[in-house]
Amino acid sequence: MGNVPTSVKHCLSYEQLVQDYPWLRRWLLEEKMADHSDVLRGIQRVPHVQYPVLTPNMQGFQDAVAAGATEVAVFGSASETFSKKNINCSIDESMLRFQEVINTAKEHQIPVRGYVSCALGCPHEGNIEPCKVAQVAKRLYDMGCYEISLGDTIGVGTPGSMHKMLQSVMKEVPCSALAVHCHDTYGQALANILVALQMGVCVVDSAVAGLGGCPYAQGSSGNVSTEDVLYMLHGMGIETGVNLPKVIEAGDFICKALRRKTNSKVTQASSRAL
Amino acid sequence: MGNVPTSVKHCLSYEQLVQDYPWLRRWLLEEKMADHSDVLRGIQRVPHVQYPVLTPNMQGFQDAVAAGATEVAVFGSASETFSKKNINCSIDESMLRFQEVINTAKEHQIPVRGYVSCALGCPHEGNIEPCKVAQVAKRLYDMGCYEISLGDTIGVGTPGSMHKMLQSVMKEVPCSALAVHCHDTYGQALANILVALQMGVCVVDSAVAGLGGCPYAQGSSGNVSTEDVLYMLHGMGIETGVNLPKVIEAGDFICKALRRKTNSKVTQASSRAL
Repeated sequence: MGNVPTSVKHCLSYEQLVQDYPWLRRWLLEEKMADHSDVLRGIQRVPHVQYPVLTPNMQGFQDAVAAGATEVAVFGSASETFSKKNINCSIDESMLRFQEVINTAKEHQIPVRGYVSCALGCPHEGNIEPCKVAQVAKRLYDMGCYEISLGDTIGVGTPGSMHKMLQSVMKEVPCSALAVHCHDTYGQALANILVALQMGVCVVDSAVAGLGGCPYAQGSSGNVSTEDVLYMLHGMGIETGVNLPKVIEAGDFICKALRRKTNSKVTQASSRAL
Repeated sequence: MGNVPTSVKHCLSYEQLVQDYPWLRRWLLEEKMADHSDVLRGIQRVPHVQYPVLTPNMQGFQDAVAAGATEVAVFGSASETFSKKNINCSIDESMLRFQEVINTAKEHQIPVRGYVSCALGCPHEGNIEPCKVAQVAKRLYDMGCYEISLGDTIGVGTPGSMHKMLQSVMKEVPCSALAVHCHDTYGQALANILVALQMGVCVVDSAVAGLGGCPYAQGSSGNVSTEDVLYMLHGMGIETGVNLPKVIEAGDFICKALRRKTNSKVTQASSRAL
């Protein structure tokens, strides 16, 4: 790992990691989501880094707070069918639950992020009207979410549908409170993110090595890879404060641990070039 | 293959194909470039479709014309080192050869397309100055090429470098005579194409299933896949006149024949969705 400081090497050593955090071994080997309480209790936290926990309801919120969460997230859907299948309630019902979570979070001074899934299409309903996305985004924002992440959960969006959807949402929610969350299922993620950046969105969700996906959206691939997003941003002269080679290294580590191939084309190209 | 007309099924049947064109079998199995004369003589041509042949010099041009080529292409480079390694001569020397080819092509009323490789970076020289690309593009255009295809041969470009390069080239060559030719090595192809479209470029090179690559550019992946480009264009409301499901079918066919996995995310996603 070259000139990496010892502390980082320590963090990046799989053997060291599972020795320090035995509960991780099972998760890494079985590649399933560990309980967030275990994760929050297990990790060594770094100052100024947020560790948000998805909290669909009050029970989830209380567990998260008990485990020491300093930020939580609620996830709504722009598709009625997806809402029912993903969080087992209608959009209206989900908003009632979220309101309770958000109110309590406010009392604890814990910031809440809101997600809108299926913002560019639904595996069950197909196309989703931009006004529907705008409506759900506005409700979450008005309830008190500090930021709304618009998710192309199944990665079917294009620069065309992204543009239309953002135009609609920006009438209801200030651009500075918006983020985009793209999956690369149809290879469109970077082009879609580019359109969002051109429209003024400054927050982009991504995952190291393009890991992830959605258990409720069949055929959905992982999030867009952080490495490929960074390569694009840096190539556009946008300062991110993120060290790309270090992210590539972290991606290599987690892919080895999970025995998965990276989804990052930048990482694939970099290793071919070595 | 569902409701595909018999003539198309005939075209898409690998067994039928190698029975009709025995010379193809070796090429498909060995996956190497067949001689263009064999290809031109072997295929059944469709009206209004161009079958251009790369002709680096007069010998190549004469062979191509003898085999019935109705369009030829010359390929220059914006990188001196790449020119020497790829076509074994300096940029200036290549221009002299191209001039001869273009002059003779004019006499035969055969249109000539010009390529500029390494337009966004070179495997040997790294960054390439946009003014260098503009210079080579202008020379090819002034010599008589009807269109200049700007190639990101090694796929290192980003929307940032694409924008700068096109700005520079458009000062020398009319936008209507420009095309972009992107490789997806670093996952940036669609985002780069999007920028080119936004700047007014209307011609985009691509390859079914993202096949191809460049034998002289190590680590270079294939061209951007036609399927993914079409998905983006159609999603932006741009009419291409191309039937995406048929292209996916053609991609499936050639990938089976070559025993390769498609590089098209659209095709991968579509087959997961079946």
